[in-house]
Formats: sequence, structure tokens, C-alpha cells
Amino acid sequence: MTEIEWDDHIAVTPTTDGEFTADLTDGWVVGGGVNGGYLLATIGNALSKVAPGKPDPIAVSAYYLSASVPGPATVATRVLRDGGSVATLAADLKQGDDARITVLATCGDLDRLPDDVRTTAKPPIMAPLEECVPNTLAPEDVRKIAPLMERFDMRFDPGCAGWAVGKPSGNGLMQAWFRLKGERDPDPIELLMVCDALPPVTFDLGMFGWAPTLELTVHVRAKPAPGWLRVSHRTRNVAGGMFEEDCEVWDSADRLVAQSRQLARHPRG
Amino acid sequence: MTEIEWDDHIAVTPTTDGEFTADLTDGWVVGGGVNGGYLLATIGNALSKVAPGKPDPIAVSAYYLSASVPGPATVATRVLRDGGSVATLAADLKQGDDARITVLATCGDLDRLPDDVRTTAKPPIMAPLEECVPNTLAPEDVRKIAPLMERFDMRFDPGCAGWAVGKPSGNGLMQAWFRLKGERDPDPIELLMVCDALPPVTFDLGMFGWAPTLELTVHVRAKPAPGWLRVSHRTRNVAGGMFEEDCEVWDSADRLVAQSRQLARHPRG
Repeated sequence: MTEIEWDDHIAVTPTTDGEFTADLTDGWVVGGGVNGGYLLATIGNALSKVAPGKPDPIAVSAYYLSASVPGPATVATRVLRDGGSVATLAADLKQGDDARITVLATCGDLDRLPDDVRTTAKPPIMAPLEECVPNTLAPEDVRKIAPLMERFDMRFDPGCAGWAVGKPSGNGLMQAWFRLKGERDPDPIELLMVCDALPPVTFDLGMFGWAPTLELTVHVRAKPAPGWLRVSHRTRNVAGGMFEEDCEVWDSADRLVAQSRQLARHPRG
Repeated sequence: MTEIEWDDHIAVTPTTDGEFTADLTDGWVVGGGVNGGYLLATIGNALSKVAPGKPDPIAVSAYYLSASVPGPATVATRVLRDGGSVATLAADLKQGDDARITVLATCGDLDRLPDDVRTTAKPPIMAPLEECVPNTLAPEDVRKIAPLMERFDMRFDPGCAGWAVGKPSGNGLMQAWFRLKGERDPDPIELLMVCDALPPVTFDLGMFGWAPTLELTVHVRAKPAPGWLRVSHRTRNVAGGMFEEDCEVWDSADRLVAQSRQLARHPRG
């Protein structure tokens, strides 16, 4: 397991007219599908190569059309507007004739943003790394259907990991430390995956099972500092068969580097 | 001022191949542009007519490309996927050759969602309607550059309206009661506008001026009950020249009917 794994997994090869090919790995399978965050990072990797001088995803909105499968895929990109400091782009991930994900995005250069920080949000209050529950403790049968868990080191805050032992808190909150295997340092494209890497926050409500994403929007607000990330997922509006999942990603320098919200269907369970 | 005004303002006429024409009114002008929420509702009105049996916007993500002006516009729609209970659609608002807004959306039928409500979020704590500060108190010069203020009755919670008298709280919170003029009862398409109708929440941080939206995603979670809406805007991550604005819309039956987040550039001041 080396640093190279992640870059291989999200690799894209340009073909023609803004189109790229990708090979979706079975290493990011979870249950019946391929993790939506990994797919979004693969699309983000393609988008990073489209607008000159604008390699970073700043806002990315993905609508999930059908479940992806491991294997070849294409990412077709279009430039909707490129002017000033940001570009607005579109992308479609397909496998054969099947549309999997459609995306709108604003890309720019995070290094060129002003350096003001007036953030009032506070980092998640969670137990130190060494007191958290590593994902490697998951039962063998869970790890078998979720090979994505071999891709990263995820340490769950015990204060909101009761669901793992049949005692969900009912608060709708999940928090974890996160780092790709091989201790690869995070970057903006990786953050697109991190926002969808934890189990559905509905686990903490005792609603287990897959929660298919309808829509996921990620805002990448700064380049993450090297080291561990802290990730929180929260839901406050479970109704009508759906829930929102709000994610924050904090870096080792206590900067809120990404915020996301997704709308998902909750497990019928 | 009658109920008919709003419906006239967002009216769209189908032409061919999923395209609609609209006439953007100068009644929704604010400062140098046309209110982004009104524009989104106009697009939402077109989208409501595209997928049979799926008239309601459930998730709508808009990327703002250039500032719209009052006058004729076209809304070109495409069906990306229509199957099961929801359809995924795309839309582009243009004026002449100028792309103004590009949108992805999931539409469905809110009446057909399951009736579970396990929402843990609480309605905003705000002063009763009669103790709030009506937008009609705004100075004449403000109302002159913001004719949109004539379109609705907006009553600001005095606890977070200090910005109006030069005393912003610094908390990054704004709350108001909202109702269209003519006491038109709210509906899902109107909610797309309501999520962007209040002044930028950065006013409460003492940062005045226009805050151009890069991206706005609205989740409409239920049909609103008749009567007044309560709207809250909050920001927690002002950094890098940008801020997120989280909006909640609660109806008269204490249901959280819409949640939105936008990423905007903050005023240079």
C-alpha cells in the first residue's frame, strides 16, 4: 500500500475534445456500488486538467443517475465559462451508454485566493487519534463487502461510534479521523472523496444500509495542510424518506478546508 | 399587488424541444442585477413542466455565469434521466448568446414522498411577527436600487437586524418572516426564490455590498403549509474571499421545508 495507489485509482487519460478515460477500481467498492466520493474525485481529477491555471475544484455539484460498476468509464467535460479567476465546467461520467453521474463545477486556483480567515466555526470536538476506533476493527464480513475500507485509515470518535456495537446515539452525528493509506497527504481533489467516505450518518440513527445519494455538493475552501483530516457528518432533517448529510473536513492546521451537503434516500431498513 | 404578480413574473412559455421563453421583470432588480433566487424560481417553473408527474423541484443546483438583466430570456431544458420516482434534469438560462445560469436538478412529486418526519432541527428562535422590523422601513434610496423589496413582506428579527442601523452583531446570522405581497401562499417553486431573498448574511458581519453567488443548491423537502415562512441565513466559514450561506425555510406548521447552501464571494468592502 503506497502513496501511488490513490493517484492510480483516480487516474484519467485525455482522449479528445475534453474527454477522458478512467478505469474505476474495484478497490473502492462498497456494498453493491462504487463509492460516490471516489467517483467524484475521479471526475474532479479530469476537471482539474480542463481550464488552464484553474486546477482546483472550488464548488462541485454531482447528481447521481445510476450505480457505477468497476471497470472502464469516460468523463466528458465542457467549459461553460472561463473568465476572471474561476471557470465553470460541466462533466458527465458514463460507462458505455449508461450515464452514471452528471456534474457542474467551479474551478480556480486555491493558492491565489485572498488569505483572510474569519471563520467562526470550531473544529469538531473529538477524542484524540489514539483513543478512536480504527476501521480495521470492523468484522470480516463487513470488510468483505466494503473493500474501500482497505484504502484508508479511519478512526471513529467513540462518542459517536455506538452504532458499531448496536448502540446508535440517535443524535445524527458521526466523526472520524481520516488519512489515505500510505500516509499520502491530502489535496483538494482528495477532499471530494473524503466528503463521502464515512458510513451514512443515518447509522447513528439506527438506520442501517445503503443510503443512495441523489445530490452532493462540495465546497473546497482551502488546500489542506499535510497530515490527518478530521471529518464530521451531521443530519438534522430526516423526513419524507430522505435526509441531508452535512460534512465538514478540518485539516491538521485547524482550518475548515471543505464543507459539503448531500441529499440522500435513507435506508428502508 | 395581487396574487397574480408572482405567477406572471416567473411565467414561462414552451416553444420547442424542451425550450421555454421567459421575460425577466425589472421588479426583481437589486443593485446591479436581477435577484438570483427569482431567476432560479423562473428556471424551476420551466423544469416543473418537463418530466410528467414530477412537477416539484427536490434538489436544484445553480451555477451563476453572468449577471442577468431585465428582459427576454430562454430556458433550455434537458432530461438526463427519468425513471422511478424522480427525474434528473438540466437547464440553461440564456439572454441572447449570453449564458446566465446553468442548473442541474432532481424533480419529483412531493405529495408522493413517505410521510415520516424525524427532524431534529428546531425552528429558528425569533421574535413574533408584530415585533419584527418590516422591510418597508428601509430608506428611500435603498428601496430605489432594490425594487425587489416591493415584491414581498419581509420582517427582520430585531435580534439580528442591527446591521440595518449600523450595528451588525458579528454573529453571521439573519432571520426574517417572509411572505409574498398579496398574501400568496408559498409553494415549492417559490421556495427556490425564498432561499436567496434576504440580504447577504455578511451584512451581519459588517460587510456590506453585493455578494455574487458562485453556486446555490436548494433542497425542497416538503410542500409548505399556507401562511408566513420563517427564513434563517447563517455563515460560519468566511475565508479566502468567500463565504457559505446556509439557509433554512420553515413553514407555518413548523416543518423545515427547504434547506439551501450557497457559496458566494464576499464584498470587498
